[in-house]
Parts: sequence; C-alpha cells; structure tokens
Amino acid sequence: MDYSHRKACARIQLLGADGQVAANRVLHIDQTAHRFLFGCGAFDAVALNAVPDEKIRATLEARMQKWCRLFNYGTLPFYWGRYEPEEGHPAFEPTMAGAKWLQARGVRVKGHPLCWHTVCAPWLMKYTNAEILDKQLKRIEREVSAFRGVVDLWDVINEVVIMPVFDKYDNAVTRICREYGRFELVRRVFETAKQFNPSSTLLINDFNTSPAYEILIEGLLDKGVPIDVIGIQSHQHQGYWGKEKLYEVLERFSRFGLPIHFTENTLISGDLMPAHIVDLNDWQVSSWPSTPEGEERQAREVSEMYSILFAHPLVEAVTTWDFIDGCWLGAPSGLLRKDGSEKPAYRALEGLIHGEWETHQTLMSDAQGYVCFEGFKGDYRLSMDGRAADFRLLGNVNTQLTLL
Amino acid sequence: MDYSHRKACARIQLLGADGQVAANRVLHIDQTAHRFLFGCGAFDAVALNAVPDEKIRATLEARMQKWCRLFNYGTLPFYWGRYEPEEGHPAFEPTMAGAKWLQARGVRVKGHPLCWHTVCAPWLMKYTNAEILDKQLKRIEREVSAFRGVVDLWDVINEVVIMPVFDKYDNAVTRICREYGRFELVRRVFETAKQFNPSSTLLINDFNTSPAYEILIEGLLDKGVPIDVIGIQSHQHQGYWGKEKLYEVLERFSRFGLPIHFTENTLISGDLMPAHIVDLNDWQVSSWPSTPEGEERQAREVSEMYSILFAHPLVEAVTTWDFIDGCWLGAPSGLLRKDGSEKPAYRALEGLIHGEWETHQTLMSDAQGYVCFEGFKGDYRLSMDGRAADFRLLGNVNTQLTLL
Repeated sequence: MDYSHRKACARIQLLGADGQVAANRVLHIDQTAHRFLFGCGAFDAVALNAVPDEKIRATLEARMQKWCRLFNYGTLPFYWGRYEPEEGHPAFEPTMAGAKWLQARGVRVKGHPLCWHTVCAPWLMKYTNAEILDKQLKRIEREVSAFRGVVDLWDVINEVVIMPVFDKYDNAVTRICREYGRFELVRRVFETAKQFNPSSTLLINDFNTSPAYEILIEGLLDKGVPIDVIGIQSHQHQGYWGKEKLYEVLERFSRFGLPIHFTENTLISGDLMPAHIVDLNDWQVSSWPSTPEGEERQAREVSEMYSILFAHPLVEAVTTWDFIDGCWLGAPSGLLRKDGSEKPAYRALEGLIHGEWETHQTLMSDAQGYVCFEGFKGDYRLSMDGRAADFRLLGNVNTQLTLL
Repeated sequence: MDYSHRKACARIQLLGADGQVAANRVLHIDQTAHRFLFGCGAFDAVALNAVPDEKIRATLEARMQKWCRLFNYGTLPFYWGRYEPEEGHPAFEPTMAGAKWLQARGVRVKGHPLCWHTVCAPWLMKYTNAEILDKQLKRIEREVSAFRGVVDLWDVINEVVIMPVFDKYDNAVTRICREYGRFELVRRVFETAKQFNPSSTLLINDFNTSPAYEILIEGLLDKGVPIDVIGIQSHQHQGYWGKEKLYEVLERFSRFGLPIHFTENTLISGDLMPAHIVDLNDWQVSSWPSTPEGEERQAREVSEMYSILFAHPLVEAVTTWDFIDGCWLGAPSGLLRKDGSEKPAYRALEGLIHGEWETHQTLMSDAQGYVCFEGFKGDYRLSMDGRAADFRLLGNVNTQLTLL
C-alpha cells in the first residue's frame, strides 16, 4: 500500500526556553491526532448524557472509553422522527450534551441525517407538500444554526436515489421528493444548510453505488449544488465487497475529484445475511451470534478494507457503523461483543490507527538544533527533558519550535 | 387490453355533391392511416435509392413493399462515421433520396442518431475537445436544417448513461462527454437541434432502463433540456422481457408524463443469446438460424409486447429494429426470413396493425344524413357510390362532410 499522500515532512529547528538552539539532543516525536477521520457511530454519547440510571451510564462510559481509544470522528443521530417526535419539541439538550462530550475529547462530530424518508416525523403527514418542504428547510436551518461550532459536518440528505420511489410506507419526505424532484429538493436542502453554516462540510449519502448515484451527483454538481463530500454507505451484512468491488466503486466515484467518506461501514462477525434479501431491514432474526471464525474473518476484512481506503487519495473518512454487536438488525456488526469485550477487529483497527498509521519517533537534533522526519498528517507533540511543543503537520513544514 | 385512449368518436352529417343531406345511405368507413407510429428500421430505403445494381434494387424494392404494407414510421441511419466517413463529404443525397422515398409513401421518418460514441467519425480524433464539440454541434445544425420538413424526428443523443465511461475504444464523443459532462453535452445537442428545427420532435434514447437513465432524464428536465420524447431500446436477443418487466419499465418512465417511444425493438426467432453476455456486440456467431419453434415464439412475444405498448397511454411509437433476418449481430431478428419470406411475427403484426387496430365499417346514414362511429385515431376515407371524402380523427368530432 502507498500511504505517501497521508504523510508530510517536517524540518524543525528546536529552541530551548532560553531561545538558544537545542543542539544534539534526544527528543520524542509523538503524533497526538490524525488528520484522517477514523469514525464510528457515537449514539451512546447522547445516551450517556441523558440516561439517569447510574449503572447503565457506567456501562456506556466504559464503552465510550474504548470508543475514544480508537476514533476521532463520531456520527450523532438527527433522525427527524426521533429527534423531534412531537412537533416543536426537539431533543436539543441531550444531543448537544453528547456532541460536546465528544468534542471535549477531541472528536469531530457529524450529524446524520437532516433529510431522509426513513425514520421521518409522522406528524408531518398532516401538512401539504409545500408546508412539508418549508418545515424541512426550517428544521435544517434550526439544527445547523444551533449546533454550529460543535457539529460542522452533516449528512444533509440520505438515500436520494430511492427517495421518490420508496414505497414501503407513505412518508412526508418521499412526498416532497416526488413533488419537487430529486434535483430541486437536494438543491434546497444543501443551500439551506450552507446558508446557515457556511463553514460546514456537507455530505450527500447513499447505499446505492450504481451509475444511478453517479449520475445523480453529476447532475447536482452541474446544477451548482454545494456538495462538499460524497458519502458512500457500505453495509456488508451479505458479505465483504472484496478488493475488486471496492476499487471499482472508488474509481467511479473519484471521477468528480470530491473527497469521499465511507459513512456507514459494516462487516459482520457471524453468519452472512442471504444474498436474496434486497432491503436489509427485511432480515429479521431472533438471534444473530458472533462466532470465533466470523470474528477472525471480520478482522481480516476490516484490515484489508481500511488499508485500501486509507491508501486512496480522495478518501478522507471511514466510519464503522455499529461500535457494539446487536445494534442495527441485531447483527454481530460491532468491534465489541455484546458483553463489551474487544473483538479481533477492534485490535486490528487499533493496530492500524494507533500503530502502523501513527508516527512515533525518537530522534537526535543536529549541531544546529534541526530534526527532520516524515510522519502521518495530524497533530504532534515534540518532547525533550520534560519540555514540549505542539505543532500541526498537514503539509511539508520548515519551521522553528520553542520547547517550553 | 383497454385501447379506448387510442380511439375517438365521430358524428358526421353527410352531404352529396349537390349539398343535400345523404339520408339512409350505405357507406364505407375505412381507416387509411394510423396516428400511432408503427415503425421499423428503413435503412434499405437509402440503399434502394443508391445501389446501381438492378437486381439488388429489385430485391430491395420487393422487401420495402412488404415493409410499407406494415409500417408508417421509418428510422434512417445518420451514424456520423458512416454518414460522413470523410470530413466535409456527408452522404446527403442518398439519405435524402431514401427519406423522400419513404415520405412519398406516407411514412414519417426519424433520423438516428445525431450524437453517439459508437460508429463515431474517426477523423474527429485529431481535434481538441473544444473543436470536437463545435463540430458535433455544427453537424447537428447541418443535418436538422438540411432535412427539415422531411426528417422532423431525431434521436438526438444515444446511450448517454454509458457515454462517458464507454471504454471499448477511444472515440471523440466519449471524450467530450467526459470533458463537459453528460448534462451539459445533452443540453447543447438538444438546444442546437431545437434551434435549427423548432418544430422537430427530439428524442433521448438508451438501452439502459435502470434508475440511472431515470435520474439522467430527471436531471435533464430539471435543467430545462427540450426533450420531447423518452426513447427506450429493447433489444431482447437474450429473451423476451416479459409482461412484468415491460409494465415495470413503463411505470417508471411514465413518471415524467412525456411520450415514450420504443425505438429499437428486437425479438428473435432462434436460439437465445446466453445471459452472461453484457455487451450484445460481443456475441459473434458464424450462423444464427431462425427455427420453426423460434418463429412461433417470436410471433407470440411480438403480439403480446405490441399489445401492451399499444394499450399504454404514453407510448406513441414502437419500432422493430431489423426488418429482415441477418442484420445486426447476424441474428434471426427480422419479421422476414433471409429469403424475404414472411414469418409468423410479420403476419401477427399485420393482423394487429391492419386488423384488430384498424377501423373499417359499413354503416347506414340516418334520415338526417348522420353516421356515428368510434374508430382508432388516424386518417379516414368515407365512401359511397364511388364518391368519397377524407377526414382526420384525432379526437371526438362532430362535423359535416361533402362526398365528391
């Protein structure tokens, strides 16, 4: 794998607190944060800040501790039907508390999603389509304004390819998508999100990776819709895509030159869901256990997939969907087992994120106090004899640092 | 099948040459032309007017006679690489001769296609993308201007879904589609065609019937591209789609409310092409015979498919691609065998077009000279005692006619 585009070179002249060059000194260079977004669903961060039961909170806290050991990027739920189950009463406080809890731990937060036909608010159904669209845009204005500075990444709209033809149940968003068309609806929701948070990073997101999604994106960009990132779901309950499909999808969606986020990644550690199931939600099982062989397979697949994605120049984020087993569809889709113990996939990911892909070096400065090194892009701490200096390595740098 | 939308009612008061009402008289009502476009590839009409060999011309003439017995709508070839094999030397004369030959026989003519990556002119490859686009638009201007009044229907652009990712061979049109994007290229070619023949009927055409084509059309209409008709290819060398797929495709593409043309229909009367072939052009066989069982099957499938399409309110045309066996891919795809004899499918279609779906009645006028009838939309001749009058039935009419 070629990860050179993830790295940069630093040439740093070290100065002591006295302003003198620190020549011929041993120092430690430690990466403290990644530029790449290693993400995971972080719904527990909201629960943690909302659940009164001490015992449950302790469990969630222990779990989120393991979460924070791996990840620097969390997805928080903004499903309209759950975020605002009753019109005018949004779950602002617990969601904001969860977001701030993550932010305080150096985690960037993404809101998911602002517009989607699934888990849509049922109370919208009594309104006309014009009123629904108005409320949809007002909701976007409200959320991106209220969370600005805390949540600056948004899955603005989810699963547009299927949106107007979604026929599992009648819902308000399918109605407006049908009435106004995909292109106009997407334009309105993106422009509203950008208007009320101009510095936000806005994603379109879909599970459909066919040419239909490509052409949708092409037409939206042609229309001038401010899409910042292409979001690709990859729920692989029916089996790992494999290298070939992964490269093929990456190639097709690279054409636009936009950053790509793998927004919802699932690789399971149990029996695979049968291939004939079209809508994953149709697979209802009473129990779906994690197995030892499944866990080994999951670890292998997670390693391979993350390595391929990390090597791709346009990929800027990969988000594992479920942190723990038994969440969506009851699947063994987590990096932790139901009892909270770490699976091989957790350790494999830890070995990549905080091992292979993280820079830690011990160097000696030269006679002029210079050190040179190449490291993975991100934040760094240089330390020497109890003194330290922090700096950010996003591109090649040539600078002076004073160790205090 | 409900064909009521294909019909209209006429209440006509008949007058003799003397201006008196023709009361209590027996008269014949004969449909002479269909409003619905029953089409077929008519490339032979060009050959017929270009080939010097008398014997070949006689064969082509006999074939086109059978063609004209069935059809009122013909597709003529405008493949750029063949129409203008050398830059600046287009095959205008034979093509115009073929078009006029058809027009003189009451046949409406469609040009196919004005922009396509396949059979593209190789001499374009030496130009820059900007020059290629310019030449593409100039060619459209030239063709639609020169043929205006003779060819007023055009497949403006063909197979856009695959156009920018077509990788069988490098070609000029894929280059400009990649450079300018599908949406911009389609807009430019349609606007140019409309500009130089404002009364033309302009089709987009594709073999891809997936949501990718739907979303492409949706985005193009959102962009204001003047698409008059959605063209759907249906080459079924790998087997008849069947009712279910046919209804499903019709339902999805009806959403736009635009007329639908089935532009290239193939049902074969021999062995089916294996399902694993993705690009039909990859199937190369030394001989592909028509079989008696295949011919019966083809006739059944042609009848069912045409009946379903004729019953659909938005379908305005169905074009059989090959009139005779052994054309594209050497397939037994014709309504005639290679020896020119009529297959059961020819007779089945004749029974529908000029039997079941054509109105012929003998009626008696009442004491005030009125006759009432319901007939399939199209042109009619009323005749009585060697006198006749022509009229057009496109919607319900209540009128007087003088028999001369």
